[in-house]
Amino acid sequence: MNQAKFVVIEGLEGAGKSTAINTLRAELESAGIQDIINTREPGGTALAEKMRALVKEEHEGELLQDRSELLLLYAARIQLVETVIKPALAKGTWVIGDRHDMSSQAYQGGGRQIDANVMSSLKQIALNDFKPDFTLYLDIDPKLGLERARGRGELDRIEKMDISFFERTRERYLNLAQGDSSVAIIDASQDLNSVQQAIKQAVRAWLAEQ
Amino acid sequence: MNQAKFVVIEGLEGAGKSTAINTLRAELESAGIQDIINTREPGGTALAEKMRALVKEEHEGELLQDRSELLLLYAARIQLVETVIKPALAKGTWVIGDRHDMSSQAYQGGGRQIDANVMSSLKQIALNDFKPDFTLYLDIDPKLGLERARGRGELDRIEKMDISFFERTRERYLNLAQGDSSVAIIDASQDLNSVQQAIKQAVRAWLAEQ
Repeated sequence: MNQAKFVVIEGLEGAGKSTAINTLRAELESAGIQDIINTREPGGTALAEKMRALVKEEHEGELLQDRSELLLLYAARIQLVETVIKPALAKGTWVIGDRHDMSSQAYQGGGRQIDANVMSSLKQIALNDFKPDFTLYLDIDPKLGLERARGRGELDRIEKMDISFFERTRERYLNLAQGDSSVAIIDASQDLNSVQQAIKQAVRAWLAEQ
Repeated sequence: MNQAKFVVIEGLEGAGKSTAINTLRAELESAGIQDIINTREPGGTALAEKMRALVKEEHEGELLQDRSELLLLYAARIQLVETVIKPALAKGTWVIGDRHDMSSQAYQGGGRQIDANVMSSLKQIALNDFKPDFTLYLDIDPKLGLERARGRGELDRIEKMDISFFERTRERYLNLAQGDSSVAIIDASQDLNSVQQAIKQAVRAWLAEQ
């Protein structure tokens, strides 16, 4: 295991991504990996955070068009990948990502039902062949996830979407995860301790293969 | 001439777009067209203006990636086209555009030398078949144009680019204009009065064909 890796946590609102990120990081550190940075998407650079704000805010009277949202998300992703993630990996720093491209595929491709050709063209334009080395997808029924997320306080523009949006998003997440050997599916509906154990096991199994 | 039209002014910095817009508008009004709005790109809606700011500003220490810039420009364009231009045209209001897609083709495709496939994919994603009915391209040697623009005061991030950037941009503008019968080329290096006469003639000739 000579090369730094890009490891991503994915999942719906309320799936427990923040806790999972801590568990993942602790597990990497236990394995002797000390040089690690955390990123989040959309965002993670000064410019990308401004793009994030445009996606997350409510805009009085002006509806953010689905394709505009998608282009903003990819503009932010390019900034993060080119100015933070790739330089970190190049100098041997591991990167833990709170969301990455799979979120766009699931939310915009699945949830918002944007055309598959548009999705694949943009991914190619923005990322070329760049992808995470390993992804933990925290799978949860959106009803349960949103209930948890609502318990935390105010909801943003996206979290206010109809439940069917999140059902389509989860379905796309599952389809992508099942078709990609670099993605581990974690049942995030379990109690916290069981979820953490499942994450630890998945990370250890993956590390053992490196 | 029953349908409202989308007419665009294009050209390099210092080509005289603002004066041309006034001349164009006066000429349309002389022809009995009273219901006209003006737009500018990037921008023209509250959200698109925020995206414009991200493209125009200097960003301390963080370089805006060429492809991020391109996606921001198209995100702004989608907002403007879908929420302002198309609705205006649909209710019979003419639209005068201070820049539109030809600017991206010239500055990002020509000036920044972004791959032609990327340019055409994004145009298709953002605009589908939507395009201006008529474009006045104000052609000027970038040396002369930038001299004029510099006389007006502070330069933004893009206006500070090297002269070769603007030479590539002009070359692309000319190539596009020569290959598109809906574009009239105006020699903007002439004195103001001659430029205005040329614009009036081009607009009248186009209106006569409608």
